[in-house]
Amino acid sequence: MDALEAIFTRRSIRKFTPELVSEDVVEKLLEAAMSAPSAHNQQPWQFVVIQDRDILGRIPVFHPYSTMLKSAPLAILVCGDSTCFKSPDYWPQDCAAATQNILLAARALGLGTVWMGVYPKDPLISGMRNLFGIPEQVAPFSLIAVGHPAEEKPRANRFDEQRIHYDRW
Amino acid sequence: MDALEAIFTRRSIRKFTPELVSEDVVEKLLEAAMSAPSAHNQQPWQFVVIQDRDILGRIPVFHPYSTMLKSAPLAILVCGDSTCFKSPDYWPQDCAAATQNILLAARALGLGTVWMGVYPKDPLISGMRNLFGIPEQVAPFSLIAVGHPAEEKPRANRFDEQRIHYDRW
Repeated sequence: MDALEAIFTRRSIRKFTPELVSEDVVEKLLEAAMSAPSAHNQQPWQFVVIQDRDILGRIPVFHPYSTMLKSAPLAILVCGDSTCFKSPDYWPQDCAAATQNILLAARALGLGTVWMGVYPKDPLISGMRNLFGIPEQVAPFSLIAVGHPAEEKPRANRFDEQRIHYDRW
Repeated sequence: MDALEAIFTRRSIRKFTPELVSEDVVEKLLEAAMSAPSAHNQQPWQFVVIQDRDILGRIPVFHPYSTMLKSAPLAILVCGDSTCFKSPDYWPQDCAAATQNILLAARALGLGTVWMGVYPKDPLISGMRNLFGIPEQVAPFSLIAVGHPAEEKPRANRFDEQRIHYDRW
């Protein structure tokens, strides 16, 4: 799929078919994530690939916006690893760029995704930390549900020229 | 350009030809930015398009990693607008996704970019605020230099399978 088409037509998808996501595709999504830019090229990311139905079903117990995981075949937890930090202030932005790359790569591969926030909300961070055994030096950042879409959404036109300023506010 | 190719081949470009970036292309980049996902669809972004040579040249006075702006034809300052916030904790992630969309759209259109951090560093935020007259309720977030590339970089392979965990850390 064309890059601009992927960017313009990506929507949050919360309904998925039961079809599994192949290992090859999972690897492509993670390769896309790790291709993101990062401050001083610190690449502060780690990923938990979640395919176990029982574990997916336990996330909505503590994450209020994740009920779609009961029917999603896959989720990816993006984490920030403080042992990689060269510019500690920027790791959330680096992990957000990696997350956005996963969303776009998935769209290009015909998959649907939805980005759920985790960091900086303490109850969500500790919920993820406990469920997956994530060590102290790593912070759960975002959770992405992934699957073959069982809903279609039209392109959203969010362009608003009033948000654009030239050379001065 | 194919979406995965754009994701995998995007590199930070700091050398540009003198050729200007057309208005059509600037609008496409901003349309890409505004197509990003955001928490509760809050779309908390504002953009300053900087094409004035004198103003571009004043940024390196206070931003230490922005010397390439002396030869870049264009920069885009992405800002977070607190009057849009529904989920205030997540606006930097929303603006990071918008920034990443600009980088990828530019790559797909044959342009080079580099993402410079601004938020959360107070001296950079106040430098941008003063230079562009940005109001208090808006926070400068990231600055992207954009232009026709005058350097080529090979694809970087950052894939590292040791960053991947399955169902458990």
